[in-house]
Amino acid sequence: MSPESQAFEAIRWENNQLALLDQRKLPLEETWISHDQVEQVVDSIRDMVVRGAPAIGITAAYGVAIAAKCQYQQHQLQWKSSIEADLEKLAGSRPTAINLFWAIDRMRAVIGNLPDDVDPFAALVSEAQLIHQEDIQANLTMGDLGADLIKQSDKLGMGVITHCNTGTLATGGYGTALGVIRSAHRDGAIGQVFADETRPWLQGARLTAWELCKDGIPVTLNADGAAAHLMSTGKIGWVIVGSDRITANGDVANKIGTYSLAVLAKYHGVKFMVVAPTSTFDMSLSSGADIPIEERSGDEVLTIGERAIAPAGCAAFNPVFDVTPAALVDAIVTEKGVIETPTLASVAAVVSAA
Amino acid sequence: MSPESQAFEAIRWENNQLALLDQRKLPLEETWISHDQVEQVVDSIRDMVVRGAPAIGITAAYGVAIAAKCQYQQHQLQWKSSIEADLEKLAGSRPTAINLFWAIDRMRAVIGNLPDDVDPFAALVSEAQLIHQEDIQANLTMGDLGADLIKQSDKLGMGVITHCNTGTLATGGYGTALGVIRSAHRDGAIGQVFADETRPWLQGARLTAWELCKDGIPVTLNADGAAAHLMSTGKIGWVIVGSDRITANGDVANKIGTYSLAVLAKYHGVKFMVVAPTSTFDMSLSSGADIPIEERSGDEVLTIGERAIAPAGCAAFNPVFDVTPAALVDAIVTEKGVIETPTLASVAAVVSAA
Repeated sequence: MSPESQAFEAIRWENNQLALLDQRKLPLEETWISHDQVEQVVDSIRDMVVRGAPAIGITAAYGVAIAAKCQYQQHQLQWKSSIEADLEKLAGSRPTAINLFWAIDRMRAVIGNLPDDVDPFAALVSEAQLIHQEDIQANLTMGDLGADLIKQSDKLGMGVITHCNTGTLATGGYGTALGVIRSAHRDGAIGQVFADETRPWLQGARLTAWELCKDGIPVTLNADGAAAHLMSTGKIGWVIVGSDRITANGDVANKIGTYSLAVLAKYHGVKFMVVAPTSTFDMSLSSGADIPIEERSGDEVLTIGERAIAPAGCAAFNPVFDVTPAALVDAIVTEKGVIETPTLASVAAVVSAA
Repeated sequence: MSPESQAFEAIRWENNQLALLDQRKLPLEETWISHDQVEQVVDSIRDMVVRGAPAIGITAAYGVAIAAKCQYQQHQLQWKSSIEADLEKLAGSRPTAINLFWAIDRMRAVIGNLPDDVDPFAALVSEAQLIHQEDIQANLTMGDLGADLIKQSDKLGMGVITHCNTGTLATGGYGTALGVIRSAHRDGAIGQVFADETRPWLQGARLTAWELCKDGIPVTLNADGAAAHLMSTGKIGWVIVGSDRITANGDVANKIGTYSLAVLAKYHGVKFMVVAPTSTFDMSLSSGADIPIEERSGDEVLTIGERAIAPAGCAAFNPVFDVTPAALVDAIVTEKGVIETPTLASVAAVVSAA
């Protein structure tokens, strides 16, 4: 399966604008939003029109190209200094996803090599498109590596649980954890696919279920609290998730509820796989304790689609991510290879490879 | 604190009718439904106007009195045989809560001792009211026992997590697990109270948060998937939950997500307390493997308040309960005493006590 065979995409560059499928409206509406100003791109990242660490990175890369066009039009020779404020705004749009900073740094490096007196738009669009295409290629590679890992394990043919959304909607296309599920399904290596609904934002229900239905891969939705019971039935072989940031020792920040699955998997003898491109690694942080965890408004817990589900004035705890220690991770699948039982040394060996 | 001091009640016997606070409409509306036909009572249990194992038992007991009134009016001397179909209907309204069968059996025993030729209504109403009052008394006793347990533990003053709703709305009044939280809060024995929102039916968000706000006990709501992260912060000393059925060996059936909390508590060194009257014990079952687990329509997972949150046609897994093995339970608090590290022998010693 190539991404071209998928029934949909979520990030498009067309008519010199960035078009994003509005993920807040799925699965009920398929609405696209066009962006030709960097402020619009910042808003779309912050307000979660687009989410998923790799997709945020790609969006930000296109955002840098859009910013450069405007800055060059307004400031000509000074565009390289005037764009810095835009890069800061993009970097401040979400705090946890390292791919965001990685993509901006990569675009900044290209900016550094461009002449001051030539419109930088075409070159930066080209780099953003390269980041986008490389992401899809990385996902296809990781899909194969992850599927092979399942085939080589003693869990071949068993069910899998995934959490949040890590598919085409979260990446440039095909997906990280959901890419592995796509490849493993194609190869007949897994049984039933269960998707945690993933409260509070319901990415599993709204996005993962929608994606898999579009691709004709059977999926069963479950409440997050039912995952332990599912594991106790003996049907589940692997938990497969993505990541927003991985530290040098292999600790994994990901959507709230991931750490819960990791503890439950360990208890039940279920294997735990993280699928993330090497751009997700933050080698400057020695452990997960150093990762800033975004807390969003409690309203996301107190409401569902603007409908109140709790009494007015109730307090809510709404961390967006949690950290799974490396000791609970059986394998991290990257586009450069698989890190089994991650440690400082095994992480460095794969991430630093050419 | 006595139940009289609470700001509300949820089951009332008035004007020879059973009035139930419609829990499906909370926290947005406080609507009461009156019942003077047994079919209405069956519908209200099945459709979850009332839920919570002890509250279901009390409701069914009043339902038996209502059934007897109608049967005596229609069949006079034959009322004892004609009521059997009604008792079967009541028993079939929900499959898992043992208190339902316990209450019906207790009412049946009273029926057996009544004369055939006297209107049984007053005697059966009186017995149902006794069951109701005994439940409140049991809850007050369990509240004190549970609070004492916390005070004697090395977790004094730490936060607690509760799941689902086990308060006045789930019982005759005051609550089981929530009764312990009320008593422990009164005694200053606990820190912050966290309520799992408890998908899919959101009893934590809609009911527990509403109850605690009514009583002025500060509560913080969290997504079910955030409980593990909360435990990892070191703030939580106890998980305190109720039960729908406990087997002779101390295995505990309770709301889906309870087993998840028990595994997570064990991993984090958090203590796990179950609070349930002895009417919750099913000594005829040797272990949790024998408990029938109710599965409800997948629509409860695919929608929230009739709003679709997943694509049309998506499958869903919706078990209503899970089973926590006794080995993960630190204490079961009953009105007859506390069962620490439950076993066949320690359960029997407390449940069989006079």
